[in-house]
Amino acid sequence: MFEQRIAYGAAYYDEYMPLSRVEEDMALMEQAGMNIIRIAESTWSTWEPREGEFDFTSLNRVLQAARRHHIQVIVGTPTYAIPPWLARKYPDILAETHDGPGRYGHRQLMDLTHPGYRRHCEIIIRRLLEAAMPYENVVGFQLDNETKPYDTCSPRAQALFKKWLQEKFGTVEALNAAFGLAYWSNALGSWDDLPDVRGTINGSLAAEYEAFQRHLVTEFLSWQRSIVDEYRRPDQFVTHNFDYAWRDYSWGLQPDADQFDAAKAMTVAGCDIYHPSAAKLTGTELSLCGDIARGLKGGQPFLVLETQAQGPFAHFPFPGQLRLCAFAHLANGAAMVEYWHWHSIHNAKECYWKGILSHDLLPGAAYREIAAVGAELTALGPALTGFTRKSPVAIIVSGRSLTGIKHDYSFTGMDYNDILRWLYDALFRLNIPCDILPDTTRDFTGYDLVAVPGLYCAQEDLIAALRRYVAGGGNLLATYRSFFCDEHVTIRHAPQPYGLTDVFGMTYDQFCDGTGVEGVEGWMELLRPDDGTEVLRGYRHWAYAPYAAATLHPFGRGQAAYLGAKLEAAALEALLETLLPRLGVLVGSVRWPLVVKSGVNGQGRQLTYLLNYGPATSYTVERPCRELRADRALAAGDSLALSPFDVAILYE
Amino acid sequence: MFEQRIAYGAAYYDEYMPLSRVEEDMALMEQAGMNIIRIAESTWSTWEPREGEFDFTSLNRVLQAARRHHIQVIVGTPTYAIPPWLARKYPDILAETHDGPGRYGHRQLMDLTHPGYRRHCEIIIRRLLEAAMPYENVVGFQLDNETKPYDTCSPRAQALFKKWLQEKFGTVEALNAAFGLAYWSNALGSWDDLPDVRGTINGSLAAEYEAFQRHLVTEFLSWQRSIVDEYRRPDQFVTHNFDYAWRDYSWGLQPDADQFDAAKAMTVAGCDIYHPSAAKLTGTELSLCGDIARGLKGGQPFLVLETQAQGPFAHFPFPGQLRLCAFAHLANGAAMVEYWHWHSIHNAKECYWKGILSHDLLPGAAYREIAAVGAELTALGPALTGFTRKSPVAIIVSGRSLTGIKHDYSFTGMDYNDILRWLYDALFRLNIPCDILPDTTRDFTGYDLVAVPGLYCAQEDLIAALRRYVAGGGNLLATYRSFFCDEHVTIRHAPQPYGLTDVFGMTYDQFCDGTGVEGVEGWMELLRPDDGTEVLRGYRHWAYAPYAAATLHPFGRGQAAYLGAKLEAAALEALLETLLPRLGVLVGSVRWPLVVKSGVNGQGRQLTYLLNYGPATSYTVERPCRELRADRALAAGDSLALSPFDVAILYE
Amino acid sequence: MFEQRIAYGAAYYDEYMPLSRVEEDMALMEQAGMNIIRIAESTWSTWEPREGEFDFTSLNRVLQAARRHHIQVIVGTPTYAIPPWLARKYPDILAETHDGPGRYGHRQLMDLTHPGYRRHCEIIIRRLLEAAMPYENVVGFQLDNETKPYDTCSPRAQALFKKWLQEKFGTVEALNAAFGLAYWSNALGSWDDLPDVRGTINGSLAAEYEAFQRHLVTEFLSWQRSIVDEYRRPDQFVTHNFDYAWRDYSWGLQPDADQFDAAKAMTVAGCDIYHPSAAKLTGTELSLCGDIARGLKGGQPFLVLETQAQGPFAHFPFPGQLRLCAFAHLANGAAMVEYWHWHSIHNAKECYWKGILSHDLLPGAAYREIAAVGAELTALGPALTGFTRKSPVAIIVSGRSLTGIKHDYSFTGMDYNDILRWLYDALFRLNIPCDILPDTTRDFTGYDLVAVPGLYCAQEDLIAALRRYVAGGGNLLATYRSFFCDEHVTIRHAPQPYGLTDVFGMTYDQFCDGTGVEGVEGWMELLRPDDGTEVLRGYRHWAYAPYAAATLHPFGRGQAAYLGAKLEAAALEALLETLLPRLGVLVGSVRWPLVVKSGVNGQGRQLTYLLNYGPATSYTVERPCRELRADRALAAGDSLALSPFDVAILYE
Repeated sequence: MFEQRIAYGAAYYDEYMPLSRVEEDMALMEQAGMNIIRIAESTWSTWEPREGEFDFTSLNRVLQAARRHHIQVIVGTPTYAIPPWLARKYPDILAETHDGPGRYGHRQLMDLTHPGYRRHCEIIIRRLLEAAMPYENVVGFQLDNETKPYDTCSPRAQALFKKWLQEKFGTVEALNAAFGLAYWSNALGSWDDLPDVRGTINGSLAAEYEAFQRHLVTEFLSWQRSIVDEYRRPDQFVTHNFDYAWRDYSWGLQPDADQFDAAKAMTVAGCDIYHPSAAKLTGTELSLCGDIARGLKGGQPFLVLETQAQGPFAHFPFPGQLRLCAFAHLANGAAMVEYWHWHSIHNAKECYWKGILSHDLLPGAAYREIAAVGAELTALGPALTGFTRKSPVAIIVSGRSLTGIKHDYSFTGMDYNDILRWLYDALFRLNIPCDILPDTTRDFTGYDLVAVPGLYCAQEDLIAALRRYVAGGGNLLATYRSFFCDEHVTIRHAPQPYGLTDVFGMTYDQFCDGTGVEGVEGWMELLRPDDGTEVLRGYRHWAYAPYAAATLHPFGRGQAAYLGAKLEAAALEALLETLLPRLGVLVGSVRWPLVVKSGVNGQGRQLTYLLNYGPATSYTVERPCRELRADRALAAGDSLALSPFDVAILYE
Repeated sequence: MFEQRIAYGAAYYDEYMPLSRVEEDMALMEQAGMNIIRIAESTWSTWEPREGEFDFTSLNRVLQAARRHHIQVIVGTPTYAIPPWLARKYPDILAETHDGPGRYGHRQLMDLTHPGYRRHCEIIIRRLLEAAMPYENVVGFQLDNETKPYDTCSPRAQALFKKWLQEKFGTVEALNAAFGLAYWSNALGSWDDLPDVRGTINGSLAAEYEAFQRHLVTEFLSWQRSIVDEYRRPDQFVTHNFDYAWRDYSWGLQPDADQFDAAKAMTVAGCDIYHPSAAKLTGTELSLCGDIARGLKGGQPFLVLETQAQGPFAHFPFPGQLRLCAFAHLANGAAMVEYWHWHSIHNAKECYWKGILSHDLLPGAAYREIAAVGAELTALGPALTGFTRKSPVAIIVSGRSLTGIKHDYSFTGMDYNDILRWLYDALFRLNIPCDILPDTTRDFTGYDLVAVPGLYCAQEDLIAALRRYVAGGGNLLATYRSFFCDEHVTIRHAPQPYGLTDVFGMTYDQFCDGTGVEGVEGWMELLRPDDGTEVLRGYRHWAYAPYAAATLHPFGRGQAAYLGAKLEAAALEALLETLLPRLGVLVGSVRWPLVVKSGVNGQGRQLTYLLNYGPATSYTVERPCRELRADRALAAGDSLALSPFDVAILYE
Repeated sequence: MFEQRIAYGAAYYDEYMPLSRVEEDMALMEQAGMNIIRIAESTWSTWEPREGEFDFTSLNRVLQAARRHHIQVIVGTPTYAIPPWLARKYPDILAETHDGPGRYGHRQLMDLTHPGYRRHCEIIIRRLLEAAMPYENVVGFQLDNETKPYDTCSPRAQALFKKWLQEKFGTVEALNAAFGLAYWSNALGSWDDLPDVRGTINGSLAAEYEAFQRHLVTEFLSWQRSIVDEYRRPDQFVTHNFDYAWRDYSWGLQPDADQFDAAKAMTVAGCDIYHPSAAKLTGTELSLCGDIARGLKGGQPFLVLETQAQGPFAHFPFPGQLRLCAFAHLANGAAMVEYWHWHSIHNAKECYWKGILSHDLLPGAAYREIAAVGAELTALGPALTGFTRKSPVAIIVSGRSLTGIKHDYSFTGMDYNDILRWLYDALFRLNIPCDILPDTTRDFTGYDLVAVPGLYCAQEDLIAALRRYVAGGGNLLATYRSFFCDEHVTIRHAPQPYGLTDVFGMTYDQFCDGTGVEGVEGWMELLRPDDGTEVLRGYRHWAYAPYAAATLHPFGRGQAAYLGAKLEAAALEALLETLLPRLGVLVGSVRWPLVVKSGVNGQGRQLTYLLNYGPATSYTVERPCRELRADRALAAGDSLALSPFDVAILYE
């Protein structure tokens, strides 16, 4: 897939255009070195304006024009936004949520379990595939878009959830015991007593419902995959546009889907990545989200199905940043970069998420910068494709832990992703390459270090696997709040860190707000190290002086470090700088804002991306190589100058 | 109307009094030089305590006592607050809104389209008018009060809206195209598909519904006018108490009514103006709201039907401010100033919006200050009446643009009124007199400068009219975001400023957050001037240096200036100080906090109000005149001292 | 009750335990000198898992183990959290509130007026009592828990409210007049017109509904008492766990119950007290809440049924604070201190409100500190029991005023408890002992000073009683906003302070925001003193200079002081420091953070608690005594050293 050249393009919406200019647009794209578009995923009401009445005029027009201009096409199934007639036909097709019944208008508001929705999804998918299959430039399919459960709490969904509980627990007594339902008199006397889950105050039950909701996403996408498989050619891929936890931009692990599970329905992973720009561009979101996406299919190249072009108001890029980010995606392992989107939209809702073309539809500054990237990608061809890498560090992420912390009632307002980002951001600034693994991983062979940030809900066998890994010579780095609960958000009634006190060589039973303690800015556990456990950091405060903040302990042939407090970013970075080498991870001399990403391309050649997120700087070359963009040879020790937001690619 | 003396009075609520003291109150008013009250608009349940049972005891008592004390009366139709029996009779009389069904209790919560509401309105209006007509001291009528659509989204209102769309667009295809409903699969296949508008994410549709809601206000008030016309004497006026966008006080253009349209149902414009006091009194709200009210009937004197007496907690005035504000209203063209209200209320809700009398019902500090004003108004008599003025500057305001920006999804949180206030406040501080015109104006003859702040939605013929105006020698001053969309909040797919790039001699297609750029504090457009276009201001920032922030360009016989960025207030003021004279507008030497307002009275004599919103200062007289309050002659060059919050009136 | 030793223990939930360890727990308690537990109040679904099916296995197990370990037991009726089957049987058992219908899950969400709820309450109470009565170690019963009306607005409750109004007012005309319903056309034409009270904007009606809701609490608890009385032995007490206004911790007077009224159903008062800890521990909440609880039964010792053990995150105590707070409760008159709770909970909701044992269920730092206190209590035995005190100052609190200020629409966001705390906190820091009396008190004999903070709604006969008290030689200290309204939140239409202008020797009719005035930080009344009235403090501001901020006036044989402005805390404290001695209240030299509490024990001996909330300090002994904890004799003039968070007990 995309062996000859990086795929480069945009989402394209002929349906939204105030006038027909598909020919002109495709020509402009071709001129810009763009060779792929994604279409069709948002406009069911265009394809089927009235029930059973289909109109693929626009689809054919775009596919033909694309073909004329040597542009490949990803066709999306248009099921994430339903047409008005369907909402009118089935009023209960709109998901009833924690906030009550829905109102038609928005996308992503359906009850995925509604049989009428499924029936009509199948009809439109089949008709769309039939229309698209004749076109050889259709290279793949995207199933739905950013699928989530939309918080469905319909009676239908809740009935399925009851079944889910019955299969898992058998009896209400087992459920009562596992979830602690006796608390505040919530114990069930029979399955019929199961109340509307929206009222529950039981964190285990609430978390379980969210796990069930995530499962609906996997089930829905797998079902779509089975339909698409009836039509597609062997060379056509199947992907999905996975998105991330959102804080005005992509922030961290997606709470509303189990992406590692759902990705089994894909042949190639895909995602969208949105990030701050201008003075706020750091590259962290591109790196983290890229690492997650690359992890979905075991390290294989992934597709960036959407990333911002000119972005909205606060995300509008500085000159050079579009180019920098394009290469940053490639440096993270992307095989394709597609902007969202080609042309700015003139009304409805996302008008200020501007495309490559502004509303005047004229090639402007963004188009010119993108065209320059396109020309480079054409020139570099297969040198950049098939890029993969081997990371020394694996980070285990856990949707269960995310939900568990959300429902922990700890009065801290803490979010799992804050812990993940706290650790990840420090590693990123230190230029430590990481892989992201799901918490279902049991084999950590090949990694120098396994890091577990905020692994609040840890299954017994994961704990056992980590113990084996350390005993066998691995290095483990855990943060505060890890190992606290089982998979049902039930806190362990045994010493913490549960099941690993001998591995970490310490325990604790007290934790509190560390605000005001030097170098600490929130959660703080009062660690009690065993003899022989090294205290990496203590607390400078009369009340907490007897306790440790961070520890290191040998266990078996390996070592286990524990960070018990949310240190300030600089303090964490300083600690990691000396700790990581002791845990077998090399910390080089290059620091953010200069980011270095190395790996091998499809031909097995070493590529090193230098991404400069800061002011002008220079990089000292370590080994003889060629710099691809300027196409010149460099010797070891040469100093390579990088201007602000500059990129260099070393090829060995 | 009010030729012999400024009308001065208060809203009066005998119905709210804990004891009967109308005779005492009217005597106190008369002693204070007050000569008018407004009554009856809030107390339907007093006039009709049970359906069909009428009781005008209180009305007669007040009208008779007022007559005895030479006090004129404005009678309000009491339809903006419905009695409990009516809400019980028709549960669906309460407007169902975006927030769901209503609950009885508040005022202004009815569905204006409810036939039962209309029927009972008509009954009470007719009975009240019959009761009031025998009194010759009834000088006019107020229709309803602060009428708004109360966000009615009832099935009844939405059915009317569907009809409104059908009449406007004919087919769903035309509607789909105009509003971009294909976006996110919202395109309608038939009119029956039109969903509950409350769920829409389509900004054009949402804005259109609000335009429809505003139309309901016009229709309702016109209908009331037709009833009142059956009763009133030719000398009795009809007015309405228009209010303003609210931010703890009157802030800007009212979003929920098209006041220029609705004012056609009035013989004289009226409004209420509430403003900060004490250290926060600037006079800006009095000036802007007065300018809007004066514009409603083409510059004719208007009525201030309500303004604060002692105000609530944070608005409690310093000594002297009641007097200053009374004259400020007159300087803006008010023919009447009525306080809200005479006596403080002892329970229910607005107890802390204190009247002229405090809760002890004794004449206190506020009464004494108001009585002093009353004595002056009596002494000055016709010298102050019939005051009008000719402004060099016209500001075009646009409810469509207000709604458009509200639904622009630009992630800026921007409010149209912030742009209006940004420009207006600077002009106010520079003592530039302005008229406010609706965006339906097509003839700008007589104005030296037409200013268009935030004219986000501009109709083609308005653009054409502005082009003609400039070509013919006029001066145009536009701000950022103007001309961006058509009247349906559809962004133009052509270079910006749409239709006027040759007039302004520049274009732009990029805009972003200017926070951090020197002198800029938000929205920032990157203007690309043509050759021959003067750059009034650039950007001091490496990324934006190639672009202009403000430009000036000759076109035809006129000139067009454009302010592309939200400059900080001081920077804007400095820019306008040098720009305005070049656009034909004289900028004198007097600056806020001393405010100068000139015009001619009913006898054609020049009056100049000097309003001092700051510490002690002085004013140099330009031409021989009399100062009316101290009644002394002044020669050109004389220095007139003004103490804090002082007022002087120069008469030529 | 508890004559031989202070009762010391914890709430105990065998039902929540992930494993059976009641024997181990009771042994640990006994070792820690703990001798009492409270059980059963939260777990109806354990006692009655299915309708009519009862299971008291856990109850018997706990009662038996407790007996074996000499631990007394308080049994709570489990009616504040209903089982799922009951919610399923009666969907309308969940209180419909201002926010709409309820959802099952939380505790405290029932409609107290629901007959099905009452029927099933009675069944479970009787069955539980029958099960518990055989155990002689059951020393008392707690009725329900933290009972409140849960904002019930069901049709059932509102029908009762209509009856309540009919009985109080007779006719709608009387109601209209009392509540000012003519305002905004809310006057009722018939009782059938009474609308759903949830929509009202009438502050008097809203406040009356809350008074009605509070009455439901009293009625419900009295009804439970009558059932319990059929079973209990004469030596078994009846209590209730009253809680306080909540701001992340116990803050002030409870708005949702009339505790003084409801306490008539108890034989002994009880409460829960939660407070800040670590650097934020001041002792104020312990003192105020203790004073309120002690006042509920006329100064008799009360039970602390719950107070925090390790508390959640931000409330986690410093070493020594658990000990300090235990003695602080005793110093306020507690006969028992029970922690909430014994073991930390492992799931559901309150997992982070940690118990004495952490989640690992091992005795840790908190257990050790509590065990040390237990040993001291055992050693000191009857020396600490029966502790009562005579306070020089009475503070009148008023639920009516609390509700009145809540519904005053004053745009100040003011809360009654802020006024109460403003005054109380200053008195606490000055070490002035206070009693708390309800606003139904009419006899103030024996108090040197009566303080009325924020007595916004004052009945005529309370005003008369205060007048008599001052005339007869008493001292009165009132704050701003007192005496403003009658009991219906109707502002008096007469000079303020209503009915007491001659007593205070001043009046006022103006008030405003004093922000920016030196030493003032909010509400500010402009007092106009009579001749002969002493101005304690004026305003340093040109506009307010003519007025007083605080006054003192002799009346009859007493004096009346008035604090018209919310002074900053330091300014208030300085003013009180000189004013209190003039009002007959001794102000000693000891100041917070050292707190001194004196009284007599059950044997009539003088006890003085010294509680150090700050850094190391010393106390000069006034009279010969023994210090009980160190058991050593002290002479007058001896200096007693106190380390941080230290406690000393002087015995004379």
